Amino acid sequence: MAESYKIATFASHTALQILKGARDEGFGTVLLCPENRKKFYSSFSLADKTIETESIGELDKIAGQLNKENAIIIPHGSFVAYGSLQKLIETEMLYFGNRKILPWESDRQKEREWLKKAGIMVPRLYDAPEKIDSPVIVKFFGAEGGKGYFLTKNQKDFEQKIKSSKGKAYQLQEYIVGVPIYIHYFHSPLSGETEIMSCDRRWETNVDAIGRIAAKDQIDLSLESSYTVVGNAPLVIRESLLPELLEIGERVVETSKKLVDKKGLFGPFCLEGVLTPKMEFYVFEVSARIVAGTNVYINGTPYTWLKYNKPVSTGRRIAMEIKQAIKENRIEEVLG
Amino acid sequence: MAESYKIATFASHTALQILKGARDEGFGTVLLCPENRKKFYSSFSLADKTIETESIGELDKIAGQLNKENAIIIPHGSFVAYGSLQKLIETEMLYFGNRKILPWESDRQKEREWLKKAGIMVPRLYDAPEKIDSPVIVKFFGAEGGKGYFLTKNQKDFEQKIKSSKGKAYQLQEYIVGVPIYIHYFHSPLSGETEIMSCDRRWETNVDAIGRIAAKDQIDLSLESSYTVVGNAPLVIRESLLPELLEIGERVVETSKKLVDKKGLFGPFCLEGVLTPKMEFYVFEVSARIVAGTNVYINGTPYTWLKYNKPVSTGRRIAMEIKQAIKENRIEEVLG
Amino acid sequence: MAESYKIATFASHTALQILKGARDEGFGTVLLCPENRKKFYSSFSLADKTIETESIGELDKIAGQLNKENAIIIPHGSFVAYGSLQKLIETEMLYFGNRKILPWESDRQKEREWLKKAGIMVPRLYDAPEKIDSPVIVKFFGAEGGKGYFLTKNQKDFEQKIKSSKGKAYQLQEYIVGVPIYIHYFHSPLSGETEIMSCDRRWETNVDAIGRIAAKDQIDLSLESSYTVVGNAPLVIRESLLPELLEIGERVVETSKKLVDKKGLFGPFCLEGVLTPKMEFYVFEVSARIVAGTNVYINGTPYTWLKYNKPVSTGRRIAMEIKQAIKENRIEEVLG
Repeated sequence: MAESYKIATFASHTALQILKGARDEGFGTVLLCPENRKKFYSSFSLADKTIETESIGELDKIAGQLNKENAIIIPHGSFVAYGSLQKLIETEMLYFGNRKILPWESDRQKEREWLKKAGIMVPRLYDAPEKIDSPVIVKFFGAEGGKGYFLTKNQKDFEQKIKSSKGKAYQLQEYIVGVPIYIHYFHSPLSGETEIMSCDRRWETNVDAIGRIAAKDQIDLSLESSYTVVGNAPLVIRESLLPELLEIGERVVETSKKLVDKKGLFGPFCLEGVLTPKMEFYVFEVSARIVAGTNVYINGTPYTWLKYNKPVSTGRRIAMEIKQAIKENRIEEVLG
Repeated sequence: MAESYKIATFASHTALQILKGARDEGFGTVLLCPENRKKFYSSFSLADKTIETESIGELDKIAGQLNKENAIIIPHGSFVAYGSLQKLIETEMLYFGNRKILPWESDRQKEREWLKKAGIMVPRLYDAPEKIDSPVIVKFFGAEGGKGYFLTKNQKDFEQKIKSSKGKAYQLQEYIVGVPIYIHYFHSPLSGETEIMSCDRRWETNVDAIGRIAAKDQIDLSLESSYTVVGNAPLVIRESLLPELLEIGERVVETSKKLVDKKGLFGPFCLEGVLTPKMEFYVFEVSARIVAGTNVYINGTPYTWLKYNKPVSTGRRIAMEIKQAIKENRIEEVLG
Repeated sequence: MAESYKIATFASHTALQILKGARDEGFGTVLLCPENRKKFYSSFSLADKTIETESIGELDKIAGQLNKENAIIIPHGSFVAYGSLQKLIETEMLYFGNRKILPWESDRQKEREWLKKAGIMVPRLYDAPEKIDSPVIVKFFGAEGGKGYFLTKNQKDFEQKIKSSKGKAYQLQEYIVGVPIYIHYFHSPLSGETEIMSCDRRWETNVDAIGRIAAKDQIDLSLESSYTVVGNAPLVIRESLLPELLEIGERVVETSKKLVDKKGLFGPFCLEGVLTPKMEFYVFEVSARIVAGTNVYINGTPYTWLKYNKPVSTGRRIAMEIKQAIKENRIEEVLG
């Protein structure tokens, strides 16, 4: 049954848990891997076949080979960050998830429209630097892990700081003060149910390090903040907040069906936001695929242990969905 | 054996791990659940029976029904925070733990007396705002997760900040600078032994977020701190500190026997404190029941893996104790 | 097979996971334990035999007894921090690891030479207080968990702060701003392979607490920072960084073979560094033995779950290596 399909991904981001999850569910595995990462990945012995691929941008060239293998490709953060969105959408391949949602995820304006239509609180946007009248975080387009993001307070400060990123497209987003939280969901197109898989807290350099320096010293050193993602750590949210957070995730899914097609968003996704002292959850980003924070839970999450009573990572949850789709002869419903 | 009793709790706080733990030990489970949380809780399929209950304040009305089911109620943070202490103490029901300890836990003055009698370091208290001469944290009574707490330095600042919380009972507590740590214990009335189950670190909004803003920007933005609990993250304490921390927990138990009755405090409890650079552990609160930080360890804690070699959460540890009490015909010893 | 050898360690630091790992692999266990820690350690029932030993400094006196038992000693942080390096090197015993590397780990100058030879970025050193021209962290020699370390900015400030630590040997190290990360490795002398086991983030008091105080308040309170280690928390690093971090670990091993003997560094070790916004990894310390951060992963790490599909802590990984050495009749290769 599972033998008729293989599961493939690119050697980065969450590839290890995707391969492990596939194998746990009985799938053969294919890894697209740059030459200089082969040693690392092969030490885990999780790929049945490795295809040398320098960049995810070459996906279109390998697609034919993957199709011959009947390999379903599991996209992750590197696909959109380092590949071409257009190529990703057009390449003929077995793609887990709905590619029609990608333009909505990768364009900050459309992403915002999506969230607002779903009734979710979002930070204010400023359409020009001269309008900045509160703390603002300047975010660049793409998903390269927060690299280059900076905090600013007024136009003058902005003009100074933007110099080193000349020409890049950016967004001026209200900076909401609160604990940043990343909520990992999974929407099953087969059962129609959305689950909360887990939560994480990102660690960003240097903003998650400057607090370790006394305020007086920070000022003496003229420290500026930056937001490059380094890694992720586990976090559980108060159980009383979970029912509402589940509803929020469900609304994101429902709304996506109106935006693209009736399949809408499915598989793993993530809402990235901030919990304020008033317990308001402001969402500043949607990721319409598996996120790196799920790597924290390779041996199962608090909620998958409760639900499945076995070690289910997001990678394995994907493989479980594909396996069920094959079994029920509904594979088309998990591809898109 | 376990079949003769059921385990019940209210749908919030740590209900999921309590139900899972009960089921792992072979108990039937009953969930008291508000209508708008049913969808979330039922997705885990952990409750054999669900009784619609809008608030834990209605516990007295449901008690008869639970007694008929022979259901033992496991209290958690929501019971004291959102229910009536008096009702909780007077209602006839099978209650896991010693209700006589609740007045000592929920009154900040009595809690302090308890800790001091146990020989534990506690922060200084100020009996009037005009005496404030060091950093002070203003804490309100009850257990609503730190909501409204604020930091102050002198009377003038205090008078300004207290305005928005008029009429609430509060305590002026010395603010000890150090890493906040929550130590989860379990005292077995059957064996007489106290165990360290695990530790966690709370995440509070916005104090666990302001450090991500450069000091200069914080000052420009006139940021004030607040302490609303958002969630919890795992932490292990240096192994060399554990023997002393175990002794501290044992002293809290021993002292409780003098304060209430010879049963004293038993079951899960938590010491909430701060570790200073001199490695002194100041305790600012006792929770005489399961705490939310244990949700981090739904699939077992570092110490329960060492001791039991299977996934034992605090919820499951409770069920293990009840099961043993039934087996040894000592059920009265775990109820109170 | 495993029955012919026992595994022994001292009751502190990572002793619990070492004993558990030994037992999981079928070894008999011996615990060297101070009288006042016996109650705590015996509650886990992980030691087959306990030998009362007040301090690891007495290791030479107990060595004969351990040799009679054919007990292999697993060193951890307390061995170097609280024992005598000379005694540790000279005592005749079955020692897991290469003692010849200890002088390179415990001398900050030699440690630095080692790292530089391995092509690893290290912070600048200042050879005299009058040369301080950037933020500097003052570190004392030994491994007592960061106790007494302080941050300084110029000679005057330094002279003031050093007063309370008169006579202690110290190093003036450039303070690199970035997220501190501890990477746990294991090098197998049997297979010649190096693995990344896991990563952690230390919690230090009070530097990991001051960020919770608003900048304005910090300044009013004249807070100074300190770096005493309290505990550890899990962290996963971006998967895309792992291949490079593995290479860095391999270079540390390769270089050690030139520094001491062809055995070089083997078993568990840790690189302790900082990831900067430019994604540069500056290493400020090597620990040539198991580190306390591995206690976070007593039931397995993300990477050992991927590789071994069973709960492998660093303690168990050590026992696995010894077991294999016995089986292959190569025990000499894991002792040194």
